Amino acid sequence: MADAAVRGARKAGHDVETVHLSDYIEGMLGDCRQCRLADGSCGIKDNYEDLLVNRVVEADALIIATPLYWYGMSGRLKTFFDRFFCYTSNSSPHQDAVTKGLTNKRVAVVVSCEESYRGATVGLVTQFQEITRYLHQELVGVVIGVGNSRGEVASDPGRPLDAAEDLGRRLFDIRVTDYRIDTPRSNRVWATSPAAAGAHADDADDA
Amino acid sequence: MADAAVRGARKAGHDVETVHLSDYIEGMLGDCRQCRLADGSCGIKDNYEDLLVNRVVEADALIIATPLYWYGMSGRLKTFFDRFFCYTSNSSPHQDAVTKGLTNKRVAVVVSCEESYRGATVGLVTQFQEITRYLHQELVGVVIGVGNSRGEVASDPGRPLDAAEDLGRRLFDIRVTDYRIDTPRSNRVWATSPAAAGAHADDADDA
Amino acid sequence: MADAAVRGARKAGHDVETVHLSDYIEGMLGDCRQCRLADGSCGIKDNYEDLLVNRVVEADALIIATPLYWYGMSGRLKTFFDRFFCYTSNSSPHQDAVTKGLTNKRVAVVVSCEESYRGATVGLVTQFQEITRYLHQELVGVVIGVGNSRGEVASDPGRPLDAAEDLGRRLFDIRVTDYRIDTPRSNRVWATSPAAAGAHADDADDA
Amino acid sequence: MADAAVRGARKAGHDVETVHLSDYIEGMLGDCRQCRLADGSCGIKDNYEDLLVNRVVEADALIIATPLYWYGMSGRLKTFFDRFFCYTSNSSPHQDAVTKGLTNKRVAVVVSCEESYRGATVGLVTQFQEITRYLHQELVGVVIGVGNSRGEVASDPGRPLDAAEDLGRRLFDIRVTDYRIDTPRSNRVWATSPAAAGAHADDADDA
Repeated sequence: MADAAVRGARKAGHDVETVHLSDYIEGMLGDCRQCRLADGSCGIKDNYEDLLVNRVVEADALIIATPLYWYGMSGRLKTFFDRFFCYTSNSSPHQDAVTKGLTNKRVAVVVSCEESYRGATVGLVTQFQEITRYLHQELVGVVIGVGNSRGEVASDPGRPLDAAEDLGRRLFDIRVTDYRIDTPRSNRVWATSPAAAGAHADDADDA
Repeated sequence: MADAAVRGARKAGHDVETVHLSDYIEGMLGDCRQCRLADGSCGIKDNYEDLLVNRVVEADALIIATPLYWYGMSGRLKTFFDRFFCYTSNSSPHQDAVTKGLTNKRVAVVVSCEESYRGATVGLVTQFQEITRYLHQELVGVVIGVGNSRGEVASDPGRPLDAAEDLGRRLFDIRVTDYRIDTPRSNRVWATSPAAAGAHADDADDA
Repeated sequence: MADAAVRGARKAGHDVETVHLSDYIEGMLGDCRQCRLADGSCGIKDNYEDLLVNRVVEADALIIATPLYWYGMSGRLKTFFDRFFCYTSNSSPHQDAVTKGLTNKRVAVVVSCEESYRGATVGLVTQFQEITRYLHQELVGVVIGVGNSRGEVASDPGRPLDAAEDLGRRLFDIRVTDYRIDTPRSNRVWATSPAAAGAHADDADDA
Repeated sequence: MADAAVRGARKAGHDVETVHLSDYIEGMLGDCRQCRLADGSCGIKDNYEDLLVNRVVEADALIIATPLYWYGMSGRLKTFFDRFFCYTSNSSPHQDAVTKGLTNKRVAVVVSCEESYRGATVGLVTQFQEITRYLHQELVGVVIGVGNSRGEVASDPGRPLDAAEDLGRRLFDIRVTDYRIDTPRSNRVWATSPAAAGAHADDADDA
């Protein structure tokens, strides 16, 4: 699905770089007071800093792919997030660049999952919603494909590969809202709606 | 979206009846000890009994459509569920028929929503998952369309009408699982997977 | 539990009024274009307007009590929220007063529930979080008590009545945060922490 | 909070062993096809096998403590779960013992969290609910304490340390239910309820 989303983004004209977390992340977040180097840098010896500072921070959008493990993201992806801490805390020489660099991105998520019941992924969707809100990012979509063996989501009759490609293609076009009661807005969501004039949300209660 | 899902189900050869809750439900669940008639029947004067006993119980599947109001289903749809109680409690003459009739159905849900952020519908999806689990029903899918005025979801570039039609079409074909650790199953989800032989879930951690 | 929360709030010196929704709400949200009176007022004939305009809007805080029905709030409470719409839409003569009056309140929730597993109430907690966020309200706490017959939560060994009373007592004292990455804050949450000097969030990973 | 929960469990007469994940878990789940030893054992070089096979599997209950990192459990705790896979898959010599050993436990969770808004932990609670359901475990409770520096939850006026101690003390006494519509049960939850005779769930709708 990651490949499909990337394909979609490329079709839309975007430059995309694909990285595998296993090439960058070996160590988990520990006790910074023990790990931290004299200049405040993270002392964990792997390629995380290259990933975060040179690739993630520089990107305008992230497409995050993870299997569903134990009703959540993989431990490696979780570690990707946990270690943001070492680069955004007061002691880090990267604090300003990374803090600023993480915000205002668009984020799309694709999840492969052995099970197809909806409750399996609710906790994960909630978590991505909160993470992106905290970071002033826009969560543009989450596509879930059912499969267990590598590549098997291609056989999911729900066609998650098509959905992932579409998500990638519309990565910068998808409208994301998070209103409060006093947010000014029209009673039409879509400017070019073909719906008949006069229709109005007032009359929606005929479920 | 309800129309699209119905169209899909009809294309798959199913008989579909459409009902509007506002034609059947006027009263909310009250204090059964005061409302209940001498024979244990519900005394609320509207057409709910006809809806529940003659239509819902008789169906093999339900396609439920609701706007998202206050991050949940409409109060009328909630009342549809609340009043199950009066027909499944010990005092009801309908207890056995309704209790048995509610279980083992397939349930699809379509939601129209002004907002597009994912967190807006997480609580509702969770609730439908729990309701269907409690009733031994299978929740085959939830499609969410963004729109505010009547018919406006047709303009949602995420194409929820297509997704709703597809959900209706595959209503009885969608695979729903809810595994425990000791549930026997293959390491392939889809029998006819085109994925290369030898691929295996073991190697999924390269998100 | 509602009584316990009220008792707590009174002990803290607050004026509290208790209302039962069944005394105020009979009708569900319908099609405003048909119900609405000539001056834009809601035409549903019950005491909702008195409840909303004279009681809810005037309060500094709300303690909301509901049983868990079908993994959500009662249909009557849901209707309480649904009908906000008729008073905050452009056509309502109450729009400004009600919109302004609903915001900036503290909200506490107490839920009685037959079941004790945690997943039963997750959807409802999510929904209250979203509702209060939308309304610029502060959700100060949710207490869940297990019981099925009236008053039975008093026997719950988790002591929800004590928790509800405590919630009421601290209604205006509870600290509610919802940070973003750039929210300025100390690395200490509690000003008067007795924890040893030098301890720091950096070292929290020894779960 | 972990200490408080342990203290409670000890007061109730249970033998409790405390372990720190950082003493046992260094490596994350990788590609089993590359890591796995000739006899099917996990080849990751740390003390995880001792933890899982000799401690976790042998226990009757688990008290799991984690900080809330990025709206989820720590990456190290997530890795604790992810690596169950290597011991429950067909190739593992431990499969039967670990699979059987993980089920039918009681699980309590304590979470320390900088933020106090309820939505922050909803995803995590959902995830623990799903994990324990999958493993036929009983999730007896989740206690959330607010604090940022080590030990600071002691200052949380919500008294999470007391709640954690109580959770530990009642670890084997807490009633956990997960009903379906056809689950036989009384309309009283608590056998020794002091509530007045005649009260009944039928009349609960006066929220």
